Amino acid sequence: MNLDHNKFPDANAIRQAARRIDNYIHQTPILTSLSINKIFNAKIFFKCENFQKAGSFKSRGAVNAVFSLSEENLKKGVATHSSGNHAQALARAANLRKTNAYIVMPENSPEVKISAVKSYGGIVTFCKPNLKAREETLLKIIQETNATEIHPYNDYRIISGQATAAKEIFDKIDNPDFILTPVGGGGLLSGTALSTYFFSPSTKVIAAEPEQANDAYLSFYQNKFIPSKNPNTIADGLLTSLGTLTYPIIRKYVHGIVTVSEKSIIEAMKLIWERMKIIIEPSSAVPVAALLENKFNYHRKNIVIILSGGNIDLNNLPWQNK
Amino acid sequence: MNLDHNKFPDANAIRQAARRIDNYIHQTPILTSLSINKIFNAKIFFKCENFQKAGSFKSRGAVNAVFSLSEENLKKGVATHSSGNHAQALARAANLRKTNAYIVMPENSPEVKISAVKSYGGIVTFCKPNLKAREETLLKIIQETNATEIHPYNDYRIISGQATAAKEIFDKIDNPDFILTPVGGGGLLSGTALSTYFFSPSTKVIAAEPEQANDAYLSFYQNKFIPSKNPNTIADGLLTSLGTLTYPIIRKYVHGIVTVSEKSIIEAMKLIWERMKIIIEPSSAVPVAALLENKFNYHRKNIVIILSGGNIDLNNLPWQNK
Repeated sequence: MNLDHNKFPDANAIRQAARRIDNYIHQTPILTSLSINKIFNAKIFFKCENFQKAGSFKSRGAVNAVFSLSEENLKKGVATHSSGNHAQALARAANLRKTNAYIVMPENSPEVKISAVKSYGGIVTFCKPNLKAREETLLKIIQETNATEIHPYNDYRIISGQATAAKEIFDKIDNPDFILTPVGGGGLLSGTALSTYFFSPSTKVIAAEPEQANDAYLSFYQNKFIPSKNPNTIADGLLTSLGTLTYPIIRKYVHGIVTVSEKSIIEAMKLIWERMKIIIEPSSAVPVAALLENKFNYHRKNIVIILSGGNIDLNNLPWQNK
Repeated sequence: MNLDHNKFPDANAIRQAARRIDNYIHQTPILTSLSINKIFNAKIFFKCENFQKAGSFKSRGAVNAVFSLSEENLKKGVATHSSGNHAQALARAANLRKTNAYIVMPENSPEVKISAVKSYGGIVTFCKPNLKAREETLLKIIQETNATEIHPYNDYRIISGQATAAKEIFDKIDNPDFILTPVGGGGLLSGTALSTYFFSPSTKVIAAEPEQANDAYLSFYQNKFIPSKNPNTIADGLLTSLGTLTYPIIRKYVHGIVTVSEKSIIEAMKLIWERMKIIIEPSSAVPVAALLENKFNYHRKNIVIILSGGNIDLNNLPWQNK
């Protein structure tokens, strides 16, 4: 049995993850835009995980986790509850290994997300839209199938996988001043913080979070784990609270967390669409919103922003509800 | 004086144009998508001129034309009438040479297009929204300023510039079976056809045109120049008719022209946004629509599609008016 699950990720675990997933994910491009640089008076590098397989960075962790399973466990399949990008990524990863992905989704999930999971061969079970129902339904499925639960972020295999995005960046860009990610459950952020610590230690890691889902911000600055209360943000990937594995990493290896308004998230998202002609989802716009709100001193610096994903319902764009 | 204006473009003229513009335009990426390839059962390469400077391929021709001017003519500035991508591209090109771009725009032009032209330093003169007023206003400005008119497509410097997009493709992809472009005035199509003739003669050039603006289709198959009558299409870059310079090139060097419905254009545009996470304007979607409508036998072939531009009003997307 592979013990990655239980072992705190070191530099080798991240390098191993990068090799393990290499054939099954995109080494996404890093884009720049002169007009964006001019607006912010900084040199900004966008790591485009919106172009990643299944539309977000979640494919990195999901592939790493699924491809870490023993042959015996692999046969029994994998399971998770998720209405978002992790569900698609896990379904795809399981499909690559020709095993089952049991995905518990709230019955009010958007049709576009359900069909995306199904298009990758995911086996969807619906439940009431609350955490208790999600967890109970998942538990029941796992008891029936003996599938391995792959948590969306509270799992070292997932964290090591997400860490590969920052590793790819540091393979190409030497010592940027800052690296920015959004933070929800903290899988991308903790992986990024570890990769930065190992591979670009002079770089400062800044996380950006919606004001209206600010559990990471509160936990970070009050030095204790504070879960979300009624989070409500357009950045639907960031509604979750930190986990018991991600929070300690973030506390130790992240340099700052800033919060941004919903208005800034929408403005930042539209700015990227208009200037860069690429589609990013609201969660991806959160670090850009931190620049719009001047939340730290970034002028004339080299900044990497991880654009986390590009999955969005094109029939329902935020600037049209205003 | 530079005579490019009057000389039919040969392979050297296109090579010269490529060198002339090299520092001032993007060598845009060529993207592929496994899911799109699967849908169409073909291998499709997308040349992303939506990522081009000023948001469309028009920067190629505009830079080539402006940088071909004599110092004496350059001082007097350049002029055109356009409400679209050529206006932005010409304003930007003139700005690079620190000279004036006089842009005649219909008074009902969208605010977003007017401010884009102004952001590049273009000097905008408004006129009534009809061709007569546009031409008269332009003539008056040219008489006053002695500026050089740079027509959006009926100019060999422009055609040579637009031809560089296909040249870049053939530098990277050997002998694709097909190359597809949209056709409006025919600058991109005629340039592409010439580059194909010179640099990849086994490749077939197919143009795609909206059914509701089908002057190129009619002219091509009836073997005589037939201008548009009341064209009406969401592909706002394709409303113009072929020109006296572009039509003969198209007649001689293009292999086929197909037409597509408005419905298919919108469907194709949304498909590219959703699957590739990139923003293309409706004109760019027209060749993709030709695949959706199965307008020629492309299965299992290598196909290059030039995505012509990415300038679109994000507040007014076509699938939301349905």
